[in-house]
Amino acid sequence: MRIHLQNPIDDPLFHFSQTMWDAAAGPETHHAVSIGSTAADLAAAMEEAEALVCDAGIVKAHFPCSAPHLKLLFVTNAGLDRLAPYDWLPPGVALMNNRGTHAVKAGEFGIMAVLMLANRIPAMITHQRAGEWRKLWGSALAGRRITIVGLGTLGGAVAEHAHRFGMHVTGIRTAAKPHPHCERVLATADLDTVLPDTECLLLACPLTNATRGLMDRRRLARLPNGAGIVNIGRGELVDQDALCDLLDNGHLSGAVLDVFTPEPIPDGHRLWTTPNLVISPHTSADDPATYNPRSLEIFLDNVRAHNAGERLPNLFDTRRGY
Amino acid sequence: MRIHLQNPIDDPLFHFSQTMWDAAAGPETHHAVSIGSTAADLAAAMEEAEALVCDAGIVKAHFPCSAPHLKLLFVTNAGLDRLAPYDWLPPGVALMNNRGTHAVKAGEFGIMAVLMLANRIPAMITHQRAGEWRKLWGSALAGRRITIVGLGTLGGAVAEHAHRFGMHVTGIRTAAKPHPHCERVLATADLDTVLPDTECLLLACPLTNATRGLMDRRRLARLPNGAGIVNIGRGELVDQDALCDLLDNGHLSGAVLDVFTPEPIPDGHRLWTTPNLVISPHTSADDPATYNPRSLEIFLDNVRAHNAGERLPNLFDTRRGY
Repeated sequence: MRIHLQNPIDDPLFHFSQTMWDAAAGPETHHAVSIGSTAADLAAAMEEAEALVCDAGIVKAHFPCSAPHLKLLFVTNAGLDRLAPYDWLPPGVALMNNRGTHAVKAGEFGIMAVLMLANRIPAMITHQRAGEWRKLWGSALAGRRITIVGLGTLGGAVAEHAHRFGMHVTGIRTAAKPHPHCERVLATADLDTVLPDTECLLLACPLTNATRGLMDRRRLARLPNGAGIVNIGRGELVDQDALCDLLDNGHLSGAVLDVFTPEPIPDGHRLWTTPNLVISPHTSADDPATYNPRSLEIFLDNVRAHNAGERLPNLFDTRRGY
Repeated sequence: MRIHLQNPIDDPLFHFSQTMWDAAAGPETHHAVSIGSTAADLAAAMEEAEALVCDAGIVKAHFPCSAPHLKLLFVTNAGLDRLAPYDWLPPGVALMNNRGTHAVKAGEFGIMAVLMLANRIPAMITHQRAGEWRKLWGSALAGRRITIVGLGTLGGAVAEHAHRFGMHVTGIRTAAKPHPHCERVLATADLDTVLPDTECLLLACPLTNATRGLMDRRRLARLPNGAGIVNIGRGELVDQDALCDLLDNGHLSGAVLDVFTPEPIPDGHRLWTTPNLVISPHTSADDPATYNPRSLEIFLDNVRAHNAGERLPNLFDTRRGY
């Protein structure tokens, strides 16, 4: 297959190399591979390429474009919400996202955030900022109740860790299908019923028309006094102002957020000074040392499935949005 | 046995109750137990008590004192360095510390701190304090190298977590005896040889004459550029000024510290504003919900050993200091 890898714009940490490709492809030396970084590289490659691997920024900048032989488009992001609506997708091209790549790093970030909330780190940091020594005690995770919204790669990985630490894990997803690391799984429609018993709420679902604004002011207020919140999904899942209000007035004990509305967070925005809030700059799921090698492995799994006439494991459903 | 439980001074979160005792003792109802909170309570109880359970603050305030029948003194702290020298201990009384109680909470705090360093949280917090959005990527733990100094309750618990996350764990202790969760264990005398390969250094040993100032300026500088440090032992294990210097100049990428010199950290101290440093107020190992119940269980294990004429599991060696 003629495959083109196009590097992201202005993001040298996540560039592809021939060595990386050779390591991922191993004995599969029958593919013709090119690697590009400029708009001209991409335009030239697209005349012949049957498969393109690139990030959402490249798609946003260059599609629709002429790509007469393209069959597979593998986007190296997990959430493709910024590419909606998907009318730029050439007919007959299979769009894939990069689900799976983020499991290890995002799972570790997620359980770290849960441990930080249980140990009261966000409040400790607020005291530190004020130069105040105030004793504050946390608790161990065993027996505590976490609700994880979204049980895909990210949420599933966090559920596994949380379960191993002895937490009571409730999962929320579109349909209430069981999950090996959740004590129970409820459908999104039942989210309201579990919020009052949730000590830690972790958001790890994609942003779709069904999830935008899911944690609105009313739902946030249903969390019990002292609850904490983690968001590794998308900023738009939450009413951010309501969340800041509940941190300001102490109803929520802490938050660890990796995603925001908008990004970057503007200068002087209230998020910078909201108490008991830890800000990570939307990098929770990305490990530069493993990201591209793992992405190429997953892409190649999809190429093999395509060549075998099987369903593509990473096929993106533009109607559902994930 | 006549047992007295004396509550700590000014620390109501960690008070004993009869319910707590009954739950811990279960069917062992043959003990005569009293619980006190004032100096008069203690003085009265000491006339008859064969065993006393209290924290180091009580010992510091009231010993030496008349305690004619005392055989067992169980101090509810793990590190008893503030009680040295131990010449206040009545002859023939077995001194015990509370090792074991802190395993779960301190182990979780420790691996949280390791995850925070790998995820660059200390630097993210410094950027947040400045109101700056700066992309910064962390890495997953698998394959990274941690050195844990001290393999007692605290260090052993962190080693178990770190091993489970796929880290290469090197343990350091007085004698190079193997540990089930360490790839290798070296004696303290060999610490210098492992520092240049240590990505994360975690201090979890007791403060003794042998460990005071262990991580001096010279040893800290042997850590490689970008290394991180966690201290859940005692502040005096480290040259704190040298540590701040190495955070200021960026040689170390981050630190998560639970212990300091002195405590509380004084107003205006440089620790409050040192970059890439997270300050926890010496509460990493204490979970108020489980601390006293667990302490009583451990104390009762020692009473049973005493009555059976066996070695006390928590016997404190005043010569070694742990």
